Amino acid sequence: MIKEYDNIKVIGFDADDTLWVNETYFREAEEAFGKLLSDYETPNKIDQELFKMEIRNLPIYGYGVKAFVLSMVQSALELSNYNVSHKTIEEILNIGKRMLEKPVELLDGVEEVLKVLSKKYRLILATKGDLLDQERKLEKSGLTSYFHHIEVLSDKQEINYSKLLNHLEVKPSEFLMIGNSLKSDVLPLVNIGAHAVHVPFHTTWAHEEVTEKDTNGKTYKTISSLRDVIKLFE
Amino acid sequence: MIKEYDNIKVIGFDADDTLWVNETYFREAEEAFGKLLSDYETPNKIDQELFKMEIRNLPIYGYGVKAFVLSMVQSALELSNYNVSHKTIEEILNIGKRMLEKPVELLDGVEEVLKVLSKKYRLILATKGDLLDQERKLEKSGLTSYFHHIEVLSDKQEINYSKLLNHLEVKPSEFLMIGNSLKSDVLPLVNIGAHAVHVPFHTTWAHEEVTEKDTNGKTYKTISSLRDVIKLFE
Repeated sequence: MIKEYDNIKVIGFDADDTLWVNETYFREAEEAFGKLLSDYETPNKIDQELFKMEIRNLPIYGYGVKAFVLSMVQSALELSNYNVSHKTIEEILNIGKRMLEKPVELLDGVEEVLKVLSKKYRLILATKGDLLDQERKLEKSGLTSYFHHIEVLSDKQEINYSKLLNHLEVKPSEFLMIGNSLKSDVLPLVNIGAHAVHVPFHTTWAHEEVTEKDTNGKTYKTISSLRDVIKLFE
Repeated sequence: MIKEYDNIKVIGFDADDTLWVNETYFREAEEAFGKLLSDYETPNKIDQELFKMEIRNLPIYGYGVKAFVLSMVQSALELSNYNVSHKTIEEILNIGKRMLEKPVELLDGVEEVLKVLSKKYRLILATKGDLLDQERKLEKSGLTSYFHHIEVLSDKQEINYSKLLNHLEVKPSEFLMIGNSLKSDVLPLVNIGAHAVHVPFHTTWAHEEVTEKDTNGKTYKTISSLRDVIKLFE
């Protein structure tokens, strides 16, 4: 086992794109949205404008599917110069509903890793997004029993993690976070003195991307599959 | 002090319409929505249809402003037989944004009650709705420091409270919940053996209403102002 993991008591897992597929569904929805609006703009321009709208609305709507749908409706109105058809707006609502009803597709090795680690550590799920949506996905995943606690955070910045560790009554050095987002699951932890493991997913939302400057000199592990977490603890 | 309160260790407060005004803003939004759609239906019919839509969407969207806005958009399309103007749809989105940006208006006696009770009890905030929205309201309220913990629940049924008490490591007999909703803040607690105090707010969402049959034989206190909570502990 890696020496600095000796003190670890609690392991936090990100959910979307760490335990199960998520970003793929957003990409599919964006593609469907681009097709619906194709009379008005190029796919590239539609993508850009929707992204700008999401970022503009982020402080007020936060993360998750409902926020995304509201931004799609607003983008559709503006991109079409208020000409988009009513059926298209209805279809945008339906895209959102289908996203909320998607089955949960677990990533490779998830159940095995949770089974092994839950024998020795307290596991928690630390995710952002819609509370109801995340609870529903956890339920559908069949993984509930592995987790001592599920925490849905409104954001994943250092302050949110510091509050979480306080609440869990563990020191940063006793906590390891595992997730696919450098920005949300890795760097804020490293910055407060906790441990982090990065498991990249093949798709990353532009808002979650970081530069080399952000990661420079930061200490964390990167593994290519969640399955490899087990090796770090052997 | 009331004898059965001797064992209480933790007091839970509902937030919306218990600590601060909320339902009033939904009623105002519904009224504005009725005016926007007044070319198509009577105010009464619009109200009924919007309510039906909210209830239909509740399992998938959950509670909160974003869910409400999505239901308003869908209702506007259907009530107008897909004729509603694009500017009206935009105005519906803006109604939602204004709701999310409302200042927090504390109800009478809130700060005094929290100040007194926080000296002797661990206080928690137990609310449902959008996580980000509720965190923002708590922040704006200036009440954060009185609460040991904020818990946003996806629903307020017996199972949700049982999980919460487990997580807080208190027995039902050691927990008192205070809130304006018989359905969400009082009856589920009484049913699991915890204590509850009902502080009615002048407006109740139809979905939160209960019948006499539900309350028959259930033991809880009713007070007319939150301020009167202090007397129960004297």
